[in-house]
Amino acid sequence: MRAAFYEGHQKIRIGEGSPVAPEPGQVRIRVSHCGICGTDLHLFHGTLDSRVRQPHVMGHEMSGVVDVVGEGVRGWKPGDRVAVRPLEYCGTCPACRAGHEHVCHTLKVIGVDLPGAMQGTCTVPARTLHALPESLSLEHGALVEPLAVACHDVRLGEVAAGEHVVVLGAGPIGVLIGLVSRLEGARVILSEVNPFRRLLAERLGLETVDPREVDLPGLVDERTRGAGADVVFEVSGSAAGASSMTALARVRGRIVVVAIHAEVPRVDIFRVFFRELRILGARVYEAQDFEKSIGIAGSGALPLASLVTKVMPLESLESALRQLDGGGEVMKVLIRCSE
Amino acid sequence: MRAAFYEGHQKIRIGEGSPVAPEPGQVRIRVSHCGICGTDLHLFHGTLDSRVRQPHVMGHEMSGVVDVVGEGVRGWKPGDRVAVRPLEYCGTCPACRAGHEHVCHTLKVIGVDLPGAMQGTCTVPARTLHALPESLSLEHGALVEPLAVACHDVRLGEVAAGEHVVVLGAGPIGVLIGLVSRLEGARVILSEVNPFRRLLAERLGLETVDPREVDLPGLVDERTRGAGADVVFEVSGSAAGASSMTALARVRGRIVVVAIHAEVPRVDIFRVFFRELRILGARVYEAQDFEKSIGIAGSGALPLASLVTKVMPLESLESALRQLDGGGEVMKVLIRCSE
Repeated sequence: MRAAFYEGHQKIRIGEGSPVAPEPGQVRIRVSHCGICGTDLHLFHGTLDSRVRQPHVMGHEMSGVVDVVGEGVRGWKPGDRVAVRPLEYCGTCPACRAGHEHVCHTLKVIGVDLPGAMQGTCTVPARTLHALPESLSLEHGALVEPLAVACHDVRLGEVAAGEHVVVLGAGPIGVLIGLVSRLEGARVILSEVNPFRRLLAERLGLETVDPREVDLPGLVDERTRGAGADVVFEVSGSAAGASSMTALARVRGRIVVVAIHAEVPRVDIFRVFFRELRILGARVYEAQDFEKSIGIAGSGALPLASLVTKVMPLESLESALRQLDGGGEVMKVLIRCSE
Repeated sequence: MRAAFYEGHQKIRIGEGSPVAPEPGQVRIRVSHCGICGTDLHLFHGTLDSRVRQPHVMGHEMSGVVDVVGEGVRGWKPGDRVAVRPLEYCGTCPACRAGHEHVCHTLKVIGVDLPGAMQGTCTVPARTLHALPESLSLEHGALVEPLAVACHDVRLGEVAAGEHVVVLGAGPIGVLIGLVSRLEGARVILSEVNPFRRLLAERLGLETVDPREVDLPGLVDERTRGAGADVVFEVSGSAAGASSMTALARVRGRIVVVAIHAEVPRVDIFRVFFRELRILGARVYEAQDFEKSIGIAGSGALPLASLVTKVMPLESLESALRQLDGGGEVMKVLIRCSE
């Protein structure tokens, strides 16, 4: 089978991979599609070299079909259409024991810490599988993982009907948070500096602003009659986002930190005190978020096709990573992993 | 009646004040005792000059006895022993309309924005009054307000029996948070650089550490078998506190921001994301926190006498403020306002 190997120094080599026979409790998936995520760009740039063993197969946003079922696995059979919740946890650390396996102290992500989906087949624990309905194509099944991130974020943010939501950053996750919030009945404004991303979000019916040109706190105050936003999602990972998130939220409003902040930014915790704000971190997803994501994706409620900029063959992975790097007119790129 | 007038430039003048006749809905209190708070030090130093009209009477931690009852006031009569919840709110802003009057957008604090208790009598809205039980002396009644702050903080932090709590900063509020958390059944560590404050907290049976000499994250990890603290209270107002609060909390742990941060500090929101931490601001108190505070104070469950360093006459207010300024061997100072 073909596989795409990251070999360091922004180099992807396409070569022959070896299918892995499933151990007891595992399942081998014939990978259909796999999305490219910001984390994959970090991998490509070597930022995560300490976590990967080269040559490394990246890819964690996968859909596929069950190929071979390992010993002792029940409930799955060859041919089943699935998405993979790509998390491996220890089960014994304090977070796992408290029921928060998705933030296990030694969490391993399939495609980052373990071999991923940018190859013909991928062997994973059976407990990571979620069934895809017939109504959902395998191509769009690769969007279940990023959509589950958004479902997790919106759930922890407790977004409710009629609430005012501001999303800082309109990349794929920001747009999905906006769309899921809207499904919950919220009124959404997306703040984004990239004009292509604004255009795409607007085509999806979401209101967007360029925060360099619009007085966003003023606009939110106007919309909320001086109250402020009920929920703010910080998805930009920027110092500007960390600064404005506290300025936008109403008294007792919720601020959900979704982005990875490489730098430690300044945060106005006087404002947190003064308005009794609540800042909460949201990382990956839990099983229920995958189920919610699959339900939404399968229902046709979201224009998933509009989110996919391109579908490219495995051979084009390196070129796709370089295009995403440019930050230009690209939203989500999917890779076709097996023919 | 005597009154202590702040006249700017770290000057308090003792002079003759005029008792204010209560308007409809108001009550005049004969002030018994009034505590000195960090906010009063800020007032004394002129930091809050833009909020006060000079000559200004400070003091918001008061106990007293009802003296004169205004028109239309029901439920109160001369001689009733009371504490005052010193907040005036607008009732019409978005925060008030949402039921969060204590963080009203234009909140006024009696003793800061309005004349306070460092005088023989003080006239306040009847709705700010809380009855004191016979079991509680008027002297200790002046501790109801700071204790209510601690009750609010512990309530919002959802401290539960058996939980591990770390309090950063062991001034009066930090110590009270530690004591109230212990009443809830939590295990408490106070972190404080001032040796006098550590000594006093230890005399109250609280465990303390000097964070410059002890590896606090290491200690918390040891106590919690690597989990981290369930709840962290940031009461130091320091950059060090803002930094260590995220390092100490367990996965999904709560961090309660109680201190006023004059500078905008750096906050590790990557850690907030990575451990799904929850940071929440807690400001002043609500009516239920005053009732809880009075219940605790009246029950004798806390060694209130040990918290009071000195009781001084009104004439000594300026000298008391200067002693507190030194940050030396002083915890809570009460002023006797009427003889």
